[in-house]
Amino acid sequence: MIKILSGGVTAPLGFEAAGIEAGVKYQNRKDMAIIYSQVPCAAAGTFTSNVVKAAPVRWDRRVIDESPFVQAVIVNTGIANAGTGKDGMDCARDTAAFAAGLLGLPTNAVLVGSTGVIGPQLPMDKIKAGIGKLVLAKAHTPENGTDAAKAIMTTDTVHKECAVSVEIGGKTVTIGAISKGSGMIHPNMCTMLSFVATDAVISKETLTALVKADVVDTYNMISVDGDTSTNDSFIVLANGMAGNPEILPGTPECEAFREALHYVNETQAKRLAGDGEGATALVECVVKNADTKANARILARSVISSSLTKAAVFGRDANWGRILCALGYSGAQFDPEKLDLFYEGGGKSILIYRDGLGTDFSEEDATAILSLPEVRIIADMKAGTETATAWGCDLTYEYVKINGEYRS
Amino acid sequence: MIKILSGGVTAPLGFEAAGIEAGVKYQNRKDMAIIYSQVPCAAAGTFTSNVVKAAPVRWDRRVIDESPFVQAVIVNTGIANAGTGKDGMDCARDTAAFAAGLLGLPTNAVLVGSTGVIGPQLPMDKIKAGIGKLVLAKAHTPENGTDAAKAIMTTDTVHKECAVSVEIGGKTVTIGAISKGSGMIHPNMCTMLSFVATDAVISKETLTALVKADVVDTYNMISVDGDTSTNDSFIVLANGMAGNPEILPGTPECEAFREALHYVNETQAKRLAGDGEGATALVECVVKNADTKANARILARSVISSSLTKAAVFGRDANWGRILCALGYSGAQFDPEKLDLFYEGGGKSILIYRDGLGTDFSEEDATAILSLPEVRIIADMKAGTETATAWGCDLTYEYVKINGEYRS
Repeated sequence: MIKILSGGVTAPLGFEAAGIEAGVKYQNRKDMAIIYSQVPCAAAGTFTSNVVKAAPVRWDRRVIDESPFVQAVIVNTGIANAGTGKDGMDCARDTAAFAAGLLGLPTNAVLVGSTGVIGPQLPMDKIKAGIGKLVLAKAHTPENGTDAAKAIMTTDTVHKECAVSVEIGGKTVTIGAISKGSGMIHPNMCTMLSFVATDAVISKETLTALVKADVVDTYNMISVDGDTSTNDSFIVLANGMAGNPEILPGTPECEAFREALHYVNETQAKRLAGDGEGATALVECVVKNADTKANARILARSVISSSLTKAAVFGRDANWGRILCALGYSGAQFDPEKLDLFYEGGGKSILIYRDGLGTDFSEEDATAILSLPEVRIIADMKAGTETATAWGCDLTYEYVKINGEYRS
Repeated sequence: MIKILSGGVTAPLGFEAAGIEAGVKYQNRKDMAIIYSQVPCAAAGTFTSNVVKAAPVRWDRRVIDESPFVQAVIVNTGIANAGTGKDGMDCARDTAAFAAGLLGLPTNAVLVGSTGVIGPQLPMDKIKAGIGKLVLAKAHTPENGTDAAKAIMTTDTVHKECAVSVEIGGKTVTIGAISKGSGMIHPNMCTMLSFVATDAVISKETLTALVKADVVDTYNMISVDGDTSTNDSFIVLANGMAGNPEILPGTPECEAFREALHYVNETQAKRLAGDGEGATALVECVVKNADTKANARILARSVISSSLTKAAVFGRDANWGRILCALGYSGAQFDPEKLDLFYEGGGKSILIYRDGLGTDFSEEDATAILSLPEVRIIADMKAGTETATAWGCDLTYEYVKINGEYRS
């Protein structure tokens, strides 16, 4: 039984956070964050599939692979520390080393995260001053968690935090998260930073298996613009302070924890999609009754990634041909003569295409659904029993504006 | 030696054309076209890879596969005749049959092409009346070729025709083309209709081999919006009226013809990309010194398909990190520390990224290049000897406007 809580990354026992102004690139806004655990954590993570991996991604992958424990994460926005060569790698390591010194930790117990413009080097004087402030400011309060959620934003319009609890072996286990979007967002890790903290007792191996399995149906099923960033990172830290009996694979307790973790990840993933750059609507595509799970995912992702489908949602135009087209070029095989399409929203469902032909649906009803802040497109493939859901957003003038002007 | 001519599809001997107003969907503009050869033609073609294939695509594939010759093409705009089921297939066949009756040809000597909105059925009364007008209007004049080029446009802002001649075996062989874009344009055939006519003597087999080889580096290397249409068709008709000795594979004559055909295809493909919906600039990406030809193509297409790179060109912002990012997520493997990037245009070339690091280039010079109507991005992979070029356009407010309002 998952209980939804207020708060975010500081909701679990023993996690502290802070968000402060370091002036890395932006002025008059928080742009650096810390997540800190009072005790060592098991850590798991997945990172961008982009061949060009930012320095913090390369640092974090090594730490998570090789380090016996992790205890802190330092994040900056404004500069991505990608395309920065050997100097950039030195900056990532120096960031971790400087924070480790102040926190009394080994360097390889500190993860780093960066998001922003690709190319420039980090201003290490400002980063170090920022770390000093973060270490002083960190605390185990909901407000501090929110500060961290705000400090990791770039073009996000709202901060994104989420927390749940679940009973495991008679103990309350809590999971909390902060995440940011909102451009360069596409399956296989997005310009997405998502940090999840939990006080569960769980081994690194079990946590890693759960993380790798869950990312496939959550963060990897969203797209804003088809661009897979150099910096995408999804990291889970488990500090064990809940005192539950260790969560072991294949047990009902593991399933309960998996469901709670999935709830947090799906919630954050949907928020990232719905707050995509310039978006006015969250677009959800559910592919039902596909022949294989892989095809269901491919089809759903193709629909929410289609520029033309996204522009049609922005125009509130029930132009279902673009959905059919996007299913068709997805790479998955299917029979277009044996396929139903629906728009769904606000408690209504409209059949718009049935067995190869458009239906005589009411344009008025369709426009009403397409005008909602959450639009669902359902494709019933009638070819099997597999289902997948993907989330995206509409394509708007504002997206073009933001990205025509981003760097300047 | 390729000679560039004025004119288009009526430039080769024996080809007639017309474009007329049939009122299929638009009012007060030409919306149906005919291409007709006075004698039977060998025909070759490539079609969309979309699983959802429009009825005219299915008709044409069968005709080209099975029919001994082809002599006419009937095209309508406004309605795509896709997602129209069995009735749509009947409409495609009836269109061919009706035209064949008036032209005194077998039904399977007539190809059909449609482009426009997916979903509605063709208004066959208007189509048949249009065919009547087309058959009366067709003629072997440059003006008639231009009328046909204009009649196949949808959201294209300019009509696209092209003609060249080349000497083969002491005879002048002419090739002429008309094409249309301009949304749902993405490699693997675009919402692209491109019809090429030639008076060369060449067998169907030789022509087919040339067409299939050339499309890979021309029409399949352009993208406007990543959406592969249901209707893409590239068709070449050869009527043999030039009287040259038959072009045989592997001969210098075949190479001369191939070069001329390639010139026509590349010219038309670039025009389709540069006239993408809402575009203000043609973006060309040349990937040099890649390890394999396949990787060179993948990398070049990834850059010109990236929404963020396209938006940065619209904003005249030298944000090369997005180019690096798009190369990185393309799917091709490479070493980001051994890569140079250049902007090129107006006779100038600027090195913007070298061996893993941004250079100290002049923003002013870069903005000047990015403000040209044709922008070239060069990625030198320094990993081999293979080259590929892809063409796209910038992403603008106008693209969003056109596609938020297209259907209504």
